[in-house]
Amino acid sequence: MIYFECDYHEGAHPEILKRLCDTNMEQTMGYGVDPHCENARKIIRKVCGREDVDVHFLVGGTQTNTTVIASCLKPYQGVISACSGHINVHETGAIESTGHKVLSLESSDGKITAHAIKAYIDAHFADESVEHTVQPGMVYISFPTENGTIYSKSELSEIYSVCREYDIPLFIDGARLGYGIAASNGDITLCDIASLCDIFYIGGTKIGALFGEAVVITNEKLKHDFRYMIKQRGGMLAKGRLLGIQFETLFDNGLYFDISRHAVDQALKIRDEMRNMGYSFLFESDTNQQYPIFDDSKLAEISKKYTFCFWQKVSENKTAVRICTSWATTSENTEMLIRDIKALG
Amino acid sequence: MIYFECDYHEGAHPEILKRLCDTNMEQTMGYGVDPHCENARKIIRKVCGREDVDVHFLVGGTQTNTTVIASCLKPYQGVISACSGHINVHETGAIESTGHKVLSLESSDGKITAHAIKAYIDAHFADESVEHTVQPGMVYISFPTENGTIYSKSELSEIYSVCREYDIPLFIDGARLGYGIAASNGDITLCDIASLCDIFYIGGTKIGALFGEAVVITNEKLKHDFRYMIKQRGGMLAKGRLLGIQFETLFDNGLYFDISRHAVDQALKIRDEMRNMGYSFLFESDTNQQYPIFDDSKLAEISKKYTFCFWQKVSENKTAVRICTSWATTSENTEMLIRDIKALG
Amino acid sequence: MIYFECDYHEGAHPEILKRLCDTNMEQTMGYGVDPHCENARKIIRKVCGREDVDVHFLVGGTQTNTTVIASCLKPYQGVISACSGHINVHETGAIESTGHKVLSLESSDGKITAHAIKAYIDAHFADESVEHTVQPGMVYISFPTENGTIYSKSELSEIYSVCREYDIPLFIDGARLGYGIAASNGDITLCDIASLCDIFYIGGTKIGALFGEAVVITNEKLKHDFRYMIKQRGGMLAKGRLLGIQFETLFDNGLYFDISRHAVDQALKIRDEMRNMGYSFLFESDTNQQYPIFDDSKLAEISKKYTFCFWQKVSENKTAVRICTSWATTSENTEMLIRDIKALG
Amino acid sequence: MIYFECDYHEGAHPEILKRLCDTNMEQTMGYGVDPHCENARKIIRKVCGREDVDVHFLVGGTQTNTTVIASCLKPYQGVISACSGHINVHETGAIESTGHKVLSLESSDGKITAHAIKAYIDAHFADESVEHTVQPGMVYISFPTENGTIYSKSELSEIYSVCREYDIPLFIDGARLGYGIAASNGDITLCDIASLCDIFYIGGTKIGALFGEAVVITNEKLKHDFRYMIKQRGGMLAKGRLLGIQFETLFDNGLYFDISRHAVDQALKIRDEMRNMGYSFLFESDTNQQYPIFDDSKLAEISKKYTFCFWQKVSENKTAVRICTSWATTSENTEMLIRDIKALG
Repeated sequence: MIYFECDYHEGAHPEILKRLCDTNMEQTMGYGVDPHCENARKIIRKVCGREDVDVHFLVGGTQTNTTVIASCLKPYQGVISACSGHINVHETGAIESTGHKVLSLESSDGKITAHAIKAYIDAHFADESVEHTVQPGMVYISFPTENGTIYSKSELSEIYSVCREYDIPLFIDGARLGYGIAASNGDITLCDIASLCDIFYIGGTKIGALFGEAVVITNEKLKHDFRYMIKQRGGMLAKGRLLGIQFETLFDNGLYFDISRHAVDQALKIRDEMRNMGYSFLFESDTNQQYPIFDDSKLAEISKKYTFCFWQKVSENKTAVRICTSWATTSENTEMLIRDIKALG
Repeated sequence: MIYFECDYHEGAHPEILKRLCDTNMEQTMGYGVDPHCENARKIIRKVCGREDVDVHFLVGGTQTNTTVIASCLKPYQGVISACSGHINVHETGAIESTGHKVLSLESSDGKITAHAIKAYIDAHFADESVEHTVQPGMVYISFPTENGTIYSKSELSEIYSVCREYDIPLFIDGARLGYGIAASNGDITLCDIASLCDIFYIGGTKIGALFGEAVVITNEKLKHDFRYMIKQRGGMLAKGRLLGIQFETLFDNGLYFDISRHAVDQALKIRDEMRNMGYSFLFESDTNQQYPIFDDSKLAEISKKYTFCFWQKVSENKTAVRICTSWATTSENTEMLIRDIKALG
Repeated sequence: MIYFECDYHEGAHPEILKRLCDTNMEQTMGYGVDPHCENARKIIRKVCGREDVDVHFLVGGTQTNTTVIASCLKPYQGVISACSGHINVHETGAIESTGHKVLSLESSDGKITAHAIKAYIDAHFADESVEHTVQPGMVYISFPTENGTIYSKSELSEIYSVCREYDIPLFIDGARLGYGIAASNGDITLCDIASLCDIFYIGGTKIGALFGEAVVITNEKLKHDFRYMIKQRGGMLAKGRLLGIQFETLFDNGLYFDISRHAVDQALKIRDEMRNMGYSFLFESDTNQQYPIFDDSKLAEISKKYTFCFWQKVSENKTAVRICTSWATTSENTEMLIRDIKALG
Repeated sequence: MIYFECDYHEGAHPEILKRLCDTNMEQTMGYGVDPHCENARKIIRKVCGREDVDVHFLVGGTQTNTTVIASCLKPYQGVISACSGHINVHETGAIESTGHKVLSLESSDGKITAHAIKAYIDAHFADESVEHTVQPGMVYISFPTENGTIYSKSELSEIYSVCREYDIPLFIDGARLGYGIAASNGDITLCDIASLCDIFYIGGTKIGALFGEAVVITNEKLKHDFRYMIKQRGGMLAKGRLLGIQFETLFDNGLYFDISRHAVDQALKIRDEMRNMGYSFLFESDTNQQYPIFDDSKLAEISKKYTFCFWQKVSENKTAVRICTSWATTSENTEMLIRDIKALG
């Protein structure tokens, strides 16, 4: 079988493994205060274009989302999210386990608008019994979204502007940040991200690392005591330097951006060829996740050789799946997949 | 001003105050193990038609919902509720504060169906990544609902049947239980309630008591150690006998049912007269809460003398409000309100 | 049986019941924004000698402690308390249920010292792995303590001074505040309390009310959004005016102070007579709780007519109990108890 | 500097890195259901001598402790632990963050006794106000303890016997399990561990792995739905096979036991030599952690070349430190350290 189901089928980019081997017998202090972590922080500050940000390394996405959100909210506050947001549907209630409600907004493509956010906040504070409902205390968006879509720079600016108007932090889940920045139709850079939100993370797990997410805190008020939160939430890796080494490798020479672009190129090749064959798609995505709709009979046929991620039934005999490429997807596999889909007729 | 905004504008039914005064200088043990509480338990078991139920007394509705739900769920489970359910919208995230997600189902009138519940549970367990989403672990319904509507006996039986099929407790929020049982179109008795769910509560606060809710546990598995939960959640009143005395008074001679019926009668009088005047209503209610739609100009006029609860704008110049009667609503005030609405033209 | 076990055996001071009856059919808004609550707030501000404090009414002690502490702490912070503090031993882990550790300090008499608090905080921040331990974020003391002892004004000043030095709120649990202020050896007034901590509460349940605790917030930073916390923790009584009416009654004409003094007088009469008979005591208390040590045979004899609270075995055939008086203790019962103890020989 | 501060200064045992490199481009499903994890489970069942246990892989120790404990306890229960237990002192209140109190027992050497556990549980259930205190719902011990000490087989059997008597799960924190099994004075095997508790974990992080802990559930009742807990607590690694591969490597040919023994040998060499030089020790340890007491002047001298972990001041000019060896400690460094200590005179 050839896997196109997600972007974490393989281990790590070989360069990362190489550096882990090279540094293996170095002795360092634990818990993220070693020279590799320090160096990785320096590099990340540089590629973000901001010397004033705090950088912390955590292990995985659910852990990172939970730690960040729990650190920002007061007990009676909730976090605004698209109904399809990862925190709302695929984290087994991790946010709620910290005591906070996810305040979900309708969304057809994974995105939410500045207008909808503002309307929600206004409605809350206009309520006479304001204390009887959860106070919106934070906004969560994912870039790219769980549907492969991305925000434009102007959309993101508008959202951030609403957040600043109400003094509510904006948090960007960047589990696939590189793929969003590499989107063919996108106009957002890492520096833009770092200047248009209060806290975000750069996903490593899905873009070349064995594991690891780099949280970047841009808002001074959110920096204080964040390491306590990491420790309490189980995210403070004893051998913290493993995270430092991986992020050093990813950002030293632009590797992160290169492999992100490669993944997106493969995905768009598949998308464009399928479009030409007449396939339609559930979402308009320019990133590494594509959501084509198959006749069930064709899907059964192609699934003998490839795995995709089931997404949803769209009619009695049609199904949308997610095809996912990654830093590890080979051009050979991409070409073969396209040929095999063509052969379905 | 005359208040028709909610059903807790006054103190308690005079008979309750009288008994509190009569028993005031008795010395009893605290925390709900006194003779009055024991007697109230006995009476409630009798009116429920079940000798085998456990009965506990708590102070208020949010506290009761939170205590019950937190006592039933495992950490990774959530509670299914109508999107309009009190726990989902008006308790400042109290359920989430105990670590659990409210799994909301769409509802236009406050009710949810056995079919929708079953579909939700089936979808969860059919998911390949089942552990990535919150497991439905409980069903919450309110009787009557927050929109004044009620379940029929057959609807409730179907819901309970689904719950038993999946071994998931059914919890009925009975903050206004008496008004639901007194509903003109209803076919559900207190004994039915006690045999068609695993745990429910009989609301006192909104039906004649100063405060107090009586939790009735019918499912053996949910009885164990419930007093620990009450204490931890702040619901174990030091002078617990105050609750026992109130529920003794309410259920000794059917007072609870009588005053509930009175309230519903007043509400239906208003409803029927307004229907005759051509008013339409947001929900079809046969209980003490009515949701007529006013022209804004008429609403402004009538609001000089009466308070209602704003519910929602239904068009540019029309607004739905809640008119609420209670055990304390006088026929005089009801008649006057009807006359004054008629006078609006 | 005559109860000397605790200070909540009876209902309420008759004056309170009278006012509840007198106001019973008034219509007011719910949730603590009615005229009685407003008036009670005004009176409490006055007796506290501070116009700038916020006053909120909750139902019971565990609920109040939990709400206050959860509102002050960040997720990784804990609250410093005497090991014998009510929150550490008798609230079924209510504080921990909100996610926070109780950081207990040794204490032989229920009190903790400024020195011990400072040492604990200093040790925490001196630790190299500071983030691996719970950060002390608040100090909790009870006045009087669970052992009937009280802080002197200078002791309290020193504690508050440490708290201010580290910018950590000081919270005083005043479940029995009146009895502490009435202590024969005490030099602390309600105005002192209001100026020597950041937040405290005036207990009603144990001093004349049916139930109810008045939280007074003196620190500006702790005031924000406190009503959300009350609602979420189940403490926002629908018929909030019941609390307002009770505190109006207690503080309008000094009733609270009068009945507190009465209780302490009864307790000291018992203490002094027992001392004269040669009894020793577990703690040196000048308040309404006394902890005499009985020979077990004498205890068995006296317990045929009176109930006390078992405290602890002190040797093979000696037991310490708590004798508790209250606003409701009659001089007749006090005299009879003394006579009956004398008769034990 | 040469580090003897902890057992996680280096990366991983070279064999582990080799296997990670060898398998790097394999495509597998995520979240621990891949062939490597399945194989590792099979191997672990075998070395535990039990076919009926469930095995799960998590990332780190705090996360594992929190997940296990939160999965076992009801909301009103706490976990019994030595006061020095890792969960009680060094996890930033992670257990409390899930709502549970740590019920700490006194301990001078890190161990607790069956007798003390039984006494605690008995005292709880004998209390008249049983529901006012946290119910002991679980026992936590670490093997070896945080002080390097270990339980004998008979001590462990007695503890487990108490737990079974009260139907309370026994959980063994095995962050350093291998070092405990390799203890020179120990009589406990991995098979003993697997038959004398309800749930335990085999620590990888501190014994050769990059990271990773293998939870073994022996009690049928604790197995259900554990994967939901892992996901919610952020422990379900996307590339779960990284954990499977590491544990395959550690247990395939006894590597885990070999490197544990090596570490203990180095530690005991240091201990025995220091004893001969007249040093005394804070705890009697036969494992890889040793706690010698230095004159402060000598400690300052030796600390120019080596790092130890500060443990505590024992007198005005004497300090106890922890010297920690690991799988990675070389004989050369051990010999050099001994020589250098000798040279202090």
